[in-house]
Amino acid sequence: MCQLLGMNCNTPTDVMFSFTGFAERGGRTDHHADGWGIAFFEGKGLRHFVDHQPAFESPVAGLIRRYPIKSRNVIAHIRKATQGEVALENCHPFVRELWGRYWVFAHNGDLKDFHPRLHAGFQPVGTTDSERAFCWIMQELAKSHAGVPSVQELTLTLRELSARIAQHGTFNFLLSNGQALWAHASTHLCYVERRHPFNQAKLADEDVSIDFAQHTTPNDRVAVVVTAPLTTNETWTTFQPGELKVFVDGALQA
Amino acid sequence: MCQLLGMNCNTPTDVMFSFTGFAERGGRTDHHADGWGIAFFEGKGLRHFVDHQPAFESPVAGLIRRYPIKSRNVIAHIRKATQGEVALENCHPFVRELWGRYWVFAHNGDLKDFHPRLHAGFQPVGTTDSERAFCWIMQELAKSHAGVPSVQELTLTLRELSARIAQHGTFNFLLSNGQALWAHASTHLCYVERRHPFNQAKLADEDVSIDFAQHTTPNDRVAVVVTAPLTTNETWTTFQPGELKVFVDGALQA
Repeated sequence: MCQLLGMNCNTPTDVMFSFTGFAERGGRTDHHADGWGIAFFEGKGLRHFVDHQPAFESPVAGLIRRYPIKSRNVIAHIRKATQGEVALENCHPFVRELWGRYWVFAHNGDLKDFHPRLHAGFQPVGTTDSERAFCWIMQELAKSHAGVPSVQELTLTLRELSARIAQHGTFNFLLSNGQALWAHASTHLCYVERRHPFNQAKLADEDVSIDFAQHTTPNDRVAVVVTAPLTTNETWTTFQPGELKVFVDGALQA
Repeated sequence: MCQLLGMNCNTPTDVMFSFTGFAERGGRTDHHADGWGIAFFEGKGLRHFVDHQPAFESPVAGLIRRYPIKSRNVIAHIRKATQGEVALENCHPFVRELWGRYWVFAHNGDLKDFHPRLHAGFQPVGTTDSERAFCWIMQELAKSHAGVPSVQELTLTLRELSARIAQHGTFNFLLSNGQALWAHASTHLCYVERRHPFNQAKLADEDVSIDFAQHTTPNDRVAVVVTAPLTTNETWTTFQPGELKVFVDGALQA
């Protein structure tokens, strides 16, 4: 199973602590050695790193672990290939532009017989069911709204589209346009909201702890969404099957 | 003035030698401290690095200098902001998808009063004239061809489009879809073709030499296109104003 990691914050925050635990799952503590990727929004700009080497031995992952890139919206993915060969163009997250914004998408799961009609606008470059699903979502969003709609409107449209794709199989995904983080679960996804008073957290995959109180201000809010809890001493809330949640400024939206 | 660097080869080749000299121009030996970027094709896949820190002090540029990413098509850019603020979304190269392929574009120059009509398909994320020009090129390519045409057909279309944009100012650019490297000059661009027998080359910006014969086979062919010659002991050919050239498998196409 692939692993997803998403972070949404009200203040640019580095993802080094969460990524350290997450990257360990890329071939060492778990079996996801078919590539990985991570995308960081900085305002409307985007840093996008993908690698088809296992995350725990990738030089690019080493850079991410050491270099505190601060971002309000991050999506990372570690791949266990189910469809599509191990190749750079099949590494998530995928990126497209729509309405003058970058959109970033990563998927965990397996879609059967999902071959939607894709018009010229968004075509997959690789051969995964995931990129096909992303291109279809982008195409349908573009058809449904003339310009970039509100987060609330987008959430309604995405809820409909996700339900249609989820009929084809397991469809856990993360999506962001730099303004919000959308997360949809078919099977495995959970989240935690970190806010004042911040506590110490201990990584599940490595003997590493962090005292968030030393790295934050009382106003900071951070939401983290993952396939499986990253820490052993925080309360992670599990998504219900079919749930689409949206996070803005580090907080779950009603 | 911004700096452009493009490489097109018949065998995946690392760009470390050329990038070392090039990155020095990002704030140290020259005045281009407003960000930089580089994109490497690996098959249809793409690695894309951008940073709005000067290239000579960027940790990401440090990674590129040390880590031999092998690619047949590379485009790099060091930015001196003329239009658009210093921000990640304004760093070249820019990337879009068309016909199931990634397209990478970097520009050196300054376009006056260039505000073409852009339909929904390709919208700039940042605020540069360069990204506007790229979006317009993508839009016009999509209109001119139903699917991905031959390199020859694309070259004809690009020659027309470049001439129209170049009426608005200086338009030196590099473009690649992973199959070919197109280069258009208004003012400054030159290229070298490296092939058997390979010789020693000496960087103009740093006291570094390389003996290509030790790193190549007799069949290797590499074309390098840059704003200003990178080496002091190779013969660089200067582009004529208005020329669009295309390189495939490390060789200039007639």
